[in-house]
Amino acid sequence: MRLAIHLAETTRGQTHPNPAVGAVVVSHGRVVGLGVHLKAGEAHAEVHALRMAGERAAGATIYVTLEPCAHTGRTPPCADLIIQKKLKRVVVASTDSNPLVAGKGIARMRAAGITVDTGLMRKEADAVNRFFFHAIRHHSPYVTLKIACSLDGKTATTAGESQWITGEAARRDGQKLREKHDAILVGIGTVAADNPRLTVRAHTEARQPIRIVLDTHLRIDEHALVLTDRSAPTWLITGNNFDREKAARISGGHVRIFNLSQEPIAIREMLAALWENGITSVLVEGGATVHGSFLEARAVNEVVAYVAPKLIGGIDALPAIGGKGMAQLADSVQLTIEHIEQMDDDLKIVASRGD
Amino acid sequence: MRLAIHLAETTRGQTHPNPAVGAVVVSHGRVVGLGVHLKAGEAHAEVHALRMAGERAAGATIYVTLEPCAHTGRTPPCADLIIQKKLKRVVVASTDSNPLVAGKGIARMRAAGITVDTGLMRKEADAVNRFFFHAIRHHSPYVTLKIACSLDGKTATTAGESQWITGEAARRDGQKLREKHDAILVGIGTVAADNPRLTVRAHTEARQPIRIVLDTHLRIDEHALVLTDRSAPTWLITGNNFDREKAARISGGHVRIFNLSQEPIAIREMLAALWENGITSVLVEGGATVHGSFLEARAVNEVVAYVAPKLIGGIDALPAIGGKGMAQLADSVQLTIEHIEQMDDDLKIVASRGD
Repeated sequence: MRLAIHLAETTRGQTHPNPAVGAVVVSHGRVVGLGVHLKAGEAHAEVHALRMAGERAAGATIYVTLEPCAHTGRTPPCADLIIQKKLKRVVVASTDSNPLVAGKGIARMRAAGITVDTGLMRKEADAVNRFFFHAIRHHSPYVTLKIACSLDGKTATTAGESQWITGEAARRDGQKLREKHDAILVGIGTVAADNPRLTVRAHTEARQPIRIVLDTHLRIDEHALVLTDRSAPTWLITGNNFDREKAARISGGHVRIFNLSQEPIAIREMLAALWENGITSVLVEGGATVHGSFLEARAVNEVVAYVAPKLIGGIDALPAIGGKGMAQLADSVQLTIEHIEQMDDDLKIVASRGD
Repeated sequence: MRLAIHLAETTRGQTHPNPAVGAVVVSHGRVVGLGVHLKAGEAHAEVHALRMAGERAAGATIYVTLEPCAHTGRTPPCADLIIQKKLKRVVVASTDSNPLVAGKGIARMRAAGITVDTGLMRKEADAVNRFFFHAIRHHSPYVTLKIACSLDGKTATTAGESQWITGEAARRDGQKLREKHDAILVGIGTVAADNPRLTVRAHTEARQPIRIVLDTHLRIDEHALVLTDRSAPTWLITGNNFDREKAARISGGHVRIFNLSQEPIAIREMLAALWENGITSVLVEGGATVHGSFLEARAVNEVVAYVAPKLIGGIDALPAIGGKGMAQLADSVQLTIEHIEQMDDDLKIVASRGD
């Protein structure tokens, strides 16, 4: 199962909107088949693993990170294939969160006389698909806040200098983090100040997340890189008060404009709209005001903080999270530290709300 | 040597103004003597270890974390004792930073035909006495900045609530940190806002560091706990403009007032004055403005940050370090992460400048 989870982890981010799944077939103590789900619409992990196993699947055990499906989507049901290939035992880490599937695959296999055990390394398997499970459960994307700050919590000096607080290893990791999410979100302030491209530069085959800009009044410069660079879709989120002619000029091609009804933009309303448009995970990359809006909406599921052991100081230097903030400590958002890692001189801290 | 260093570490903070030293005597592969320096004016580590070893010291090896002294201070020179007890070999981790001692003890023992090896686990041994070595080298106390903040770098909410951001384990560790330092320093703002006692409450036998309050204009309330509680000395640092009658009323007993010539108080001048009054280490416990002054004076040797995985937010919430701050990233104070530890839900990060 550890191997199956590891296989699933390697495809995380590329199976959208499906979850990442890994499967391992074991016969007489030997691995005889391996599989992962590579891409939505293509074969599920079980299909690849059983194809590799061939005749040896009969009487074997299959370890699979997620309950095999029982419904016909773009591919036939995996539970039926397992029955047909005469496996003896199925070990499942997670049962499916998708109401179309949950429990049905397991019931069908048991009815066919196959031993089905569930729950082995469930926590580890769920972590691989935490974006997916959260989104399905809450009809809202999983939100990760990315912070790059000094040990005293500053993201820029009082003069506004912010490039670069963290070192190369941390910045490379930040690129990998982009690749794992369906979308990257920033405020118009960040676009105006830094004119970022917001693409993944890790390697040429990189999957490019959708670029989302919160731009209530459509203030964006028409020459901004997120508009002129066509290597990834760009979605602009506005309120109701904006220049409709400018909107018509800008939109089309890789650029879409979403008009929300409330001003300032209601984070929850926006997230629901993103979910309806197939987004299961959003990486929020600032600035401080946007981070503040997500915090105030209590819409932060995870924080990935890259902390450089520098001291910048300054009562007016930009903090990681701005906005109004929480007046009472009891209202602060409580996270749990999941992971700590040193990246050259810097520290990576991952903390999540666990939902 | 690992044992000798471990022994030394147990007495750190209680040997002031002497360094903490440990010694282990080994004869025929067996430990035959252990010693630590317990308190200034009392026997050195070597004396205790050699006393325990008795006759077995002849021909034995002594491992000692710091070069044995060659001068007669309040106790006779340890180098002479080692020669007299006929040890065969001396292994020294660190040579002494004190110019009265450096190299002289080693030379004298070598001249007597004893093999002396130096440098074994020097780094680890020096870390035990980093306060002491820094102070002797720079004629200024070692400065540790203590930070207790949320993951987004806030030390209080916008409404000023700060008790408690971190959990019990982190706060207990903060008490131990006080005990390791000669003095605890806060600004008058902290005294006015929180009226802290600034004592070590860990156990009844705790050594009480000197309480230092930066109070340029002697604004302190005469009923403040640091004045009415007599369990530790309190030093008030003022400029030249203050109510001399109030000063006369307050000072005496456990309270001393130091008048510095510059306003606002020059951190470097103050540290030199503290060194002259026997202080080798200062734990700076805030608030943000005081932390900012130390940063701007580039007088921070180490940061101990207790980080709670909470999000507080707020552009106006108090940051760990305030003041003017550094305008350019190139001017920020670069530290190195020395130690990371989880304390219940919180994280302890120790980073130092390595001098």
